[in-house]
Amino acid sequence: MSSFETLSEQACFGGVQGFYRHESTACGGPMRFAIYQPPQVVQGRRPVLYYLAGLTCTEETATIKAGAQRLAAQYGMVLVMPDTSPRDTGIESATGDWEFGEGAGFYVDATQAPYAGRFRMYSYVVEELPALVARHFPVDPSRSSIFGHSMGGHGALTIALRHPDRYRSVSAFAPIVAPSQVPWGRKALPRYLGEDRAAWADYDACELVARQTFPGTILIDQGEADKFLEGQLRPELFDQACAEAGQALLLRRHPGYDHSYWFISTFVEDHLRHHAQALELA
Amino acid sequence: MSSFETLSEQACFGGVQGFYRHESTACGGPMRFAIYQPPQVVQGRRPVLYYLAGLTCTEETATIKAGAQRLAAQYGMVLVMPDTSPRDTGIESATGDWEFGEGAGFYVDATQAPYAGRFRMYSYVVEELPALVARHFPVDPSRSSIFGHSMGGHGALTIALRHPDRYRSVSAFAPIVAPSQVPWGRKALPRYLGEDRAAWADYDACELVARQTFPGTILIDQGEADKFLEGQLRPELFDQACAEAGQALLLRRHPGYDHSYWFISTFVEDHLRHHAQALELA
Repeated sequence: MSSFETLSEQACFGGVQGFYRHESTACGGPMRFAIYQPPQVVQGRRPVLYYLAGLTCTEETATIKAGAQRLAAQYGMVLVMPDTSPRDTGIESATGDWEFGEGAGFYVDATQAPYAGRFRMYSYVVEELPALVARHFPVDPSRSSIFGHSMGGHGALTIALRHPDRYRSVSAFAPIVAPSQVPWGRKALPRYLGEDRAAWADYDACELVARQTFPGTILIDQGEADKFLEGQLRPELFDQACAEAGQALLLRRHPGYDHSYWFISTFVEDHLRHHAQALELA
Repeated sequence: MSSFETLSEQACFGGVQGFYRHESTACGGPMRFAIYQPPQVVQGRRPVLYYLAGLTCTEETATIKAGAQRLAAQYGMVLVMPDTSPRDTGIESATGDWEFGEGAGFYVDATQAPYAGRFRMYSYVVEELPALVARHFPVDPSRSSIFGHSMGGHGALTIALRHPDRYRSVSAFAPIVAPSQVPWGRKALPRYLGEDRAAWADYDACELVARQTFPGTILIDQGEADKFLEGQLRPELFDQACAEAGQALLLRRHPGYDHSYWFISTFVEDHLRHHAQALELA
């Protein structure tokens, strides 16, 4: 807690865009995150929306590229955008591969050496970060929502499905929905979690929705020109799993859009409206 | 012309965000620029808005950070965002200094060796780029406007003041308005243009507005927490010059905002509306 450090704070849409660093217990080292505080915080604690980024991204990526601050200022919600993994872990096998390790934490709690002590993004996002944010920022934790992109869409879906009591709403851009079945997941999950596929199911949205549904509609946007669509993302698997489980899902497919933040920035307004409604802001 | 090359094109707000490269005659080598085409181009040629970036920036900076595509799509205007100088010029004294040379072209036509053949951003922006854009993209050159930031605000103001017949409107974020009087200009202008201050006047908005005013109101936004405000920007000099010349100026000062794209993204909507009105789109 005493390690909490403000790296920068700058005026933006009447509020403050900040970058912060702290010593993480969950991840056993320093972690960075970005927070946008809308102008309405001067009147008291505000609802909070978490955004989880994808492979190779940091706390800066969506903060700079998604264009969400304008909408957060409009609705009066705090945005929290953490990094995608611990950094400078000193674990050689956790660097140099954009699909695994640093920048690719997959929002799991690793159980396998040498990752177990550091790669615990699940506990970081679900427990440590919200507690830290509630201590240092004017948020109302009882009104929290979560969304993300690609690996971060996987993170948002799995976390919300496991904690429907903690998040009012969930949405995703081009999420990985079935990591147990696609190359990205089949590469990363065994190294973080071991070869027992039963351990992977706790981090697989298609498996989780079969256990427990999320109250309210899940919003997913997917570009049809996304080069990862057929090999890695396979939204039809989640569509089918939701149908079988009775989970309300709004899956929108957008011709011509790819996997980039040009896609995200185009539809981010719809996502913030989705969350604003669930957070009783719209 | 035959050298024109598409680097990438991606769907964005119903239109296309592209990056391009070509062999520039004005700058004696390859130049890059970004163009956003709004969805309305399917119906024919559209008005075009040029954006000139500041020191250290490239064609990517505002394209990624300003959030202007959403508004260009709304109004139906094409956005053109060039790089701030030629690159890889092989001129040793044009690299390694963020205030001069590569990334710091100052939108002048250099007359001094060794910069004269390459650093000709004035002719590039005024002549070569618009002609190239008109050949390759669905724009209506008779409806053009221009804006920019810092060094690029200086570029936009000076170019519009010298060519009021070519631009329907001009605006700037935190522009350099009196380069002859501030350290950035007094460092760069002699090296590009020689020691004769008469040559600098053609690139000094305060001097130019005294010669010829621009039809319509010039819009300038300035953050009051901008660390360059007092030393380099000095908007009060342009305010005074406009008052003396009878130039309509809307100079807005914003408490708490700095020199960054967090500031620009906050107010870019007002600038696009300003230009949309002049371009008969709003």
